[in-house]
Amino acid sequence: MLPEEHNDRLRVVLVATRNPLNIGAAARAMSNFGFRRLRVVQPFEASFREARSAVGASELLREAELFDSLDEAIADCSLVVGTASIGERQPEVPVRRLDDGAGLVRSHLHHAPAAVLFGSEKRGLSNDDISRCHFLMRIPTRPAHDSMNLGQAVAISLYELAKEDVAPPVVPERKPASGEELERLTAMLLSMLATSGYTKPHTEEATAEKTRRMMRRLGLISKDAELLTGMLAKIRYVVDRARERGSD
Amino acid sequence: MLPEEHNDRLRVVLVATRNPLNIGAAARAMSNFGFRRLRVVQPFEASFREARSAVGASELLREAELFDSLDEAIADCSLVVGTASIGERQPEVPVRRLDDGAGLVRSHLHHAPAAVLFGSEKRGLSNDDISRCHFLMRIPTRPAHDSMNLGQAVAISLYELAKEDVAPPVVPERKPASGEELERLTAMLLSMLATSGYTKPHTEEATAEKTRRMMRRLGLISKDAELLTGMLAKIRYVVDRARERGSD
Repeated sequence: MLPEEHNDRLRVVLVATRNPLNIGAAARAMSNFGFRRLRVVQPFEASFREARSAVGASELLREAELFDSLDEAIADCSLVVGTASIGERQPEVPVRRLDDGAGLVRSHLHHAPAAVLFGSEKRGLSNDDISRCHFLMRIPTRPAHDSMNLGQAVAISLYELAKEDVAPPVVPERKPASGEELERLTAMLLSMLATSGYTKPHTEEATAEKTRRMMRRLGLISKDAELLTGMLAKIRYVVDRARERGSD
Repeated sequence: MLPEEHNDRLRVVLVATRNPLNIGAAARAMSNFGFRRLRVVQPFEASFREARSAVGASELLREAELFDSLDEAIADCSLVVGTASIGERQPEVPVRRLDDGAGLVRSHLHHAPAAVLFGSEKRGLSNDDISRCHFLMRIPTRPAHDSMNLGQAVAISLYELAKEDVAPPVVPERKPASGEELERLTAMLLSMLATSGYTKPHTEEATAEKTRRMMRRLGLISKDAELLTGMLAKIRYVVDRARERGSD
C-alpha cells in the first residue's frame, strides 16, 4: 500500500455514467484499493442521486463531487489519463498498456494530482474527452470481446494503480502545468484561431481536439504555461482589435 | 493474448455463489480475457438458472457446467488455486500475491489443466474448500476494506491470468497428479485413518483438511499417484480385514 497522501492525489473521474450500480461499484473498488477522490461528470442525474443515497452508500460515495464539465473536474490535475478498450477507434493520443501507464501515473502522484477518466457504459470516452488526455491506458482484453463492464474496468485499473513501485520515484524539480492552465491556454489559442479565420465552421471540432492534444504533448511546466498565457493574451488583444476594425 | 488451447485449460470455479448478477459478471470477464470454461458448484439453484437463461446470456454462460461438489468440479485439474481476501483467517496453505500466483498458474496451463476457485459473496471459500487448494492467491486490497465484489475480484484475477509470460514457460517432463487422483488417494488414506481409530470423532474434520493439504504439498506426479493408490489399496484391504476380525 502506498501512503495516503499519495493515493489522495488521484481523482477517479466517471464521465456520463448511466447506471447507479456502476457508480457504486467504482466507489467500492476505490475503497478496496485505498483511493478516496471520486468525481462524477454529467451523470444521469437520477442515477447519481440514487447511488449516493443508497442504503449503505459509503462515505466515499457521499463525498463524491459532481461536475458539469470535464474541464472543471480535471482543473487541478497536471496529468489526465483516459481508459479505453482496444477496438474503438484510432485515437490520436499515445496509447499505453494499463500496467505501463499505471506506472507513469503512480510516479506522477508522488508530487502532483492526476485524473483517470472512465467513459460511459455505451460509448466510452468521446473524442472531445480524449483530447484532454495526456495518454490513454488500455486493458489488454480480447479483441473479439473488448467491451468491459464499467465496474470491472475501474477495479482492474485501480488494482494496477495501487501496486507499489519497484523503482523509487523520480521527483521532477519542476511543477507541471495543471489541467486548468492547459485548458486556459487552449481556449485562448482556439478563440484566436476562430477570430483569425483559421478555423472553418466544418473543421471547428477537429481543430479544437487537435489543439488540445498538441498542448498535452508539449509537457508544459506551470511557469511556462503562465508565460505563454501572458504572451497569447497580448496577441489576442491585437487579433481582436484587428477583427473589430475589419468589420467596421 | 495466449493461444486458445492454453486458456482453455483454465477452469473458473464459482463455489456457492448466491447472486446471479455475479455469475453473469464472472462470465463477462472470462469472455473479455479469453477464458471459456466456467464451472459452478452448488449455487443457489434459482440464481444459476436465472443467470443462465437471462436475455443476452453468452454462449459461455449457457455452456457453464453445474456440479454438486467441489471435488467433481476439480477432478480433472492438477493445480487448484483458491482466491482470498487478506483479513479472513490464517490459512494453512501457502498464500501468494495475485501476480506471483497468476504466473505459476500460467506456467501450469502450458501443459495441464488448472482451476481457480472463487468463494461465495458472504463467506468466501470454506476451510474445507481451501484444503483442496495447492495455494491461495490474494488481491492486495486495503486491510481496512478487503472484501471485494465477486465480479470485480474475478475480473482482476483473470486480468492477471491473461497476462503474457515474460520468460518462456518451462514444460516439465512429467505429468502432475490430477485433482481426482489426489482426492482418491486422500479418501483412501482418510478411510484408513478412520478404520484404524487414528481419527477421533471430534478431530475428523481437522484431520481431513490436514491430510488434503499434505497431499497437495507433496507435488505428486500422476505416475506416482497411481503407484501410491495401488499400495494404499493393498494396505487398506489388510486394515479392513483386521477391523472385521476385531469386531467378531
